[in-house]
Amino acid sequence: MFERIAIIGLGLIGGSLARALRAKGLVGEVVGCGRDEHNLQRGIALGVIDRYSTNPAEAVHDADLVVLATTLGATSEVCRRIAPGLAPQALITDVGSTKRSVVEAARAHLGPALSRFVPGHPIAGGEKSGVEASTETLFERHRVILTPVSETASFAVGKVRRMWEATGAEVTLMEVDHHDLVLAATSHLPHLLAFALVDCLASAGSGDGRSTGEIFDYAAGGFRDFTRIASSNPDMWRDIAMANRTALMAVCTRFEATLGALKSAIDREDGAVLHATFTRAKKARDAYLTRRGLT
Amino acid sequence: MFERIAIIGLGLIGGSLARALRAKGLVGEVVGCGRDEHNLQRGIALGVIDRYSTNPAEAVHDADLVVLATTLGATSEVCRRIAPGLAPQALITDVGSTKRSVVEAARAHLGPALSRFVPGHPIAGGEKSGVEASTETLFERHRVILTPVSETASFAVGKVRRMWEATGAEVTLMEVDHHDLVLAATSHLPHLLAFALVDCLASAGSGDGRSTGEIFDYAAGGFRDFTRIASSNPDMWRDIAMANRTALMAVCTRFEATLGALKSAIDREDGAVLHATFTRAKKARDAYLTRRGLT
Repeated sequence: MFERIAIIGLGLIGGSLARALRAKGLVGEVVGCGRDEHNLQRGIALGVIDRYSTNPAEAVHDADLVVLATTLGATSEVCRRIAPGLAPQALITDVGSTKRSVVEAARAHLGPALSRFVPGHPIAGGEKSGVEASTETLFERHRVILTPVSETASFAVGKVRRMWEATGAEVTLMEVDHHDLVLAATSHLPHLLAFALVDCLASAGSGDGRSTGEIFDYAAGGFRDFTRIASSNPDMWRDIAMANRTALMAVCTRFEATLGALKSAIDREDGAVLHATFTRAKKARDAYLTRRGLT
Repeated sequence: MFERIAIIGLGLIGGSLARALRAKGLVGEVVGCGRDEHNLQRGIALGVIDRYSTNPAEAVHDADLVVLATTLGATSEVCRRIAPGLAPQALITDVGSTKRSVVEAARAHLGPALSRFVPGHPIAGGEKSGVEASTETLFERHRVILTPVSETASFAVGKVRRMWEATGAEVTLMEVDHHDLVLAATSHLPHLLAFALVDCLASAGSGDGRSTGEIFDYAAGGFRDFTRIASSNPDMWRDIAMANRTALMAVCTRFEATLGALKSAIDREDGAVLHATFTRAKKARDAYLTRRGLT
């Protein structure tokens, strides 16, 4: 499918995509690129990449597919640096968790290559990160959302789509802003809440002067699950929160209103409203699990 | 240890305690009590109880231990109804998730038996409920918090403590209000947030007019973990929110302030504050996991 791909940013996602394409025999040579040379050497040792460069323009030379898999905060700079090195037929795609910010960076820097840029977001990953954690099966039965824009050529969308489908992923097309709103609601806001909850408990203790650690000692399993995502990478989540600012603020405001209504029901001891809300939530959650075949 | 115990409310917790005490040979006869006769018959069939009564005063007759394991909302009524039937030496304990409300009910209704009432809270359970889900190992390596009050006789505390330790639980003593604050923070608030999040997403959809179900389709694993507790029992959680109103409002207000500060950092694009908060939260969460031997 590809003679040569360049993976800019060799972490869990970039590494797993390289492994998956190699495992399917869909790529000739894989070139890695990043700032951390030790990490790139690990990539070679692990068989994830064939060679590397720390210079993005050099890494993309003659590549027929370039995958931007850096942190969101680096996207703009990376677009700027790869642009002069891109082959005239190179497809470019990315794996960023927000899409409006990436599209803006691409529009600003990719020039004529913009029509061959397909914004993408594989919904996969977790707390583990780094090329060491990468696997060829990471995307199997996971969703990948592509958000082509008006400038995107349809042949580019088709080829990137087939690439993701070859890794076992389920590909969906979505508008950029819709993607950002859906992900703000289902991923970015939950992370924000988990970080806020843990920080709130950790910094205030139980609120009556006891030690800050003590409050966690009585946490049950539900708390553990709820706060798992608060162990996620702070750099990555700062970038996501900043990049998806508008959508995240909007869903957060809606959440605050829902929480405020529950709080005011508690305050006026309105058990009926609490019960109705909890029941609606339980039904929605149970229906979601059933649809996903998880119960 | 006990000739006869009466379990008022035969669900997951009451049933598991009965099973654990029987398994250790610490109880002669177990009498169940509840409103649902079919459930009590299941209790006999499962070998959890020996016999039952639907009349609380009758069920506690000659019992040397009475365990209140109903929903929180029923506690006051149950205290009122068992009081006339209690044997003069009977110990009484409960398993409620909040303690101030239970102590108030006991003070109002138990009369002279109040000195033999030991408020307790085993931190165990989960989404599964009912006597069918009960097991003799539910409390092993779980915490049980006892919150004796000024009227509580120390021999009663000692005996209830030994009973819980015999089930494999780790027993801690705590003041009533401290318990309610700690649990508000580590359990009740997380449940409120999970219910609020799921309800907010389910009722608003993605906010741009798409179907309400669609938004859940793109939820990743983190969302699933985060919202697991939104599948909890709405009746139980209405009761808990109402019973622990003061403490829950207090921690919720603190949480709203933390979330508000994060939101305002996002609004003014203050990446440093976001990064500092996310890092503090990650450290606190990772330290908690390490202390619990979970990583």
